[in-house]
Amino acid sequence: MREKEYIEWVRGVLSSGYVGDDAAVVAIGGTEIVFTTDLLVEGTHFDGGTPPRLIGRKAVAVSLSDIAAMGGTPVCAVLSICLRRGCGEEFSKELFTGAMEIAGEFDLEIVGGDTASSDVSCSINVAAVGRPPDGGVITRGGAAEGDAVLVTGALGGSSLGRHLDFVPRVREAQKILSMARPNAMIDISDGLACDLGHILKESDVGAVILEDRIPVSDDARSLSKDDGKSPLHHAFHDGEDFELLMTVSRDDADKILSAGLDCGVSSIGRITGEKGLRIAGPDGSEREVEEVGYEHKW
Amino acid sequence: MREKEYIEWVRGVLSSGYVGDDAAVVAIGGTEIVFTTDLLVEGTHFDGGTPPRLIGRKAVAVSLSDIAAMGGTPVCAVLSICLRRGCGEEFSKELFTGAMEIAGEFDLEIVGGDTASSDVSCSINVAAVGRPPDGGVITRGGAAEGDAVLVTGALGGSSLGRHLDFVPRVREAQKILSMARPNAMIDISDGLACDLGHILKESDVGAVILEDRIPVSDDARSLSKDDGKSPLHHAFHDGEDFELLMTVSRDDADKILSAGLDCGVSSIGRITGEKGLRIAGPDGSEREVEEVGYEHKW
Repeated sequence: MREKEYIEWVRGVLSSGYVGDDAAVVAIGGTEIVFTTDLLVEGTHFDGGTPPRLIGRKAVAVSLSDIAAMGGTPVCAVLSICLRRGCGEEFSKELFTGAMEIAGEFDLEIVGGDTASSDVSCSINVAAVGRPPDGGVITRGGAAEGDAVLVTGALGGSSLGRHLDFVPRVREAQKILSMARPNAMIDISDGLACDLGHILKESDVGAVILEDRIPVSDDARSLSKDDGKSPLHHAFHDGEDFELLMTVSRDDADKILSAGLDCGVSSIGRITGEKGLRIAGPDGSEREVEEVGYEHKW
Repeated sequence: MREKEYIEWVRGVLSSGYVGDDAAVVAIGGTEIVFTTDLLVEGTHFDGGTPPRLIGRKAVAVSLSDIAAMGGTPVCAVLSICLRRGCGEEFSKELFTGAMEIAGEFDLEIVGGDTASSDVSCSINVAAVGRPPDGGVITRGGAAEGDAVLVTGALGGSSLGRHLDFVPRVREAQKILSMARPNAMIDISDGLACDLGHILKESDVGAVILEDRIPVSDDARSLSKDDGKSPLHHAFHDGEDFELLMTVSRDDADKILSAGLDCGVSSIGRITGEKGLRIAGPDGSEREVEEVGYEHKW
């Protein structure tokens, strides 16, 4: 079964309106919380040789990225850690230390957890709670015709190592929200094309992306030399960049682009009333893009 | 490394005061939430032959039990599901259905989640948020000399099947709180002796348990016939009963025992100023008990 089909099925059986977004929003006793969960498993999100400190770091960073993508401020988290029998004391302490360090950097308090053991694999789940921004969370569903499409950082090739030590864009989301309000936002976990596809689907719009505006990372170029796929292909389709992808009004785009971000921010295209995702070459010719990216299957 | 050592180490490096309890309590914007997480992994908490509906059910029930043990009311949860490649559509839908059904029974709203896949094993994490009771949560740390020790249901032998389809004692905790206030409470996940040991340690007290007052389940008796250990041994040391174990004042004990609970409730002993866990036989002779129970190791 494909992950997308499963999530669609889950949406059909649940009443919550946030299934399929980066995080859920729930009201508890008059206070709204942003609530997200991410499970990393050995063999899929990291491997037996990954330094445990980076496993812990990544697990927390992925949840921080989800909260950032909703425009939220991280508050607290609980960790579930399943250790492979025989991994030993140093491995388990390093894993927790990596989680704790990045949580500390972003004022996310680790308040509890669960430990387990397994013969076959290590896994770690982080469930995090944040506060929504003034005016409510930014979902995937608000992109409007005429919006500019902005993306932070540079894309592609994160599998060379960046997927383990990326910086979640919590501060960048805060800075953007201090001067503008994105209509839609997502973090790039499945790849630019795929995650932009999520915004287009939820917002019932289309987009044109300008090929030469896509910020291509050095990693994408390195990977291209190894596998023969173009750097642009990597930037467009590789998963786990964990950059912020957003659509904003032209005015807001001007504000964000003039102010800039330390990690870089690029305007890469625009939202259209016409459905579908199209990419425009330097000569202006447009072609339809398949919104493929990383997807779990079972 | 032993789980207990790891949790002690984590307590040393974290500032949160709830590490080691069933759930954490956090204030967010003036509202307190009870926050818990539980990870179930194939080969440890269930096996390849476990019906997926029961896997989903158990994952949610364990978190509900944690919230109940703090005296809390369940509100919402996020699910992380890692499916083994090849498990297929029916398995993944059944797993989610099991989770959703028991969540519905206890007014726990599933608001979001994460999906992943793995070649080697299936796992499911439930992170749940609840509201604390009036007067604040019941921790493991408030047991006082002279308290009666009460336990719900009947204990032991849950490995015969009850560990998969137990009823989390959410309603029982509510009923108890409507007439009394336990000084300490925990759910029995590691076994009566071990979990009572947690209360004694956190409360800096001891206890005497009356052997013939321990409610021994039919499962404990069945298991005893197979493995030669006494039914009492199973009731005292088997894990995953998920019954509530609490210490209450004598007055509160009278109220609870007179009112009764549909699942049964037994007074099994008393809290003492003298440290250690002792069990008294029918002839009044006391012996020290080792607080051993299920513990993860890696």
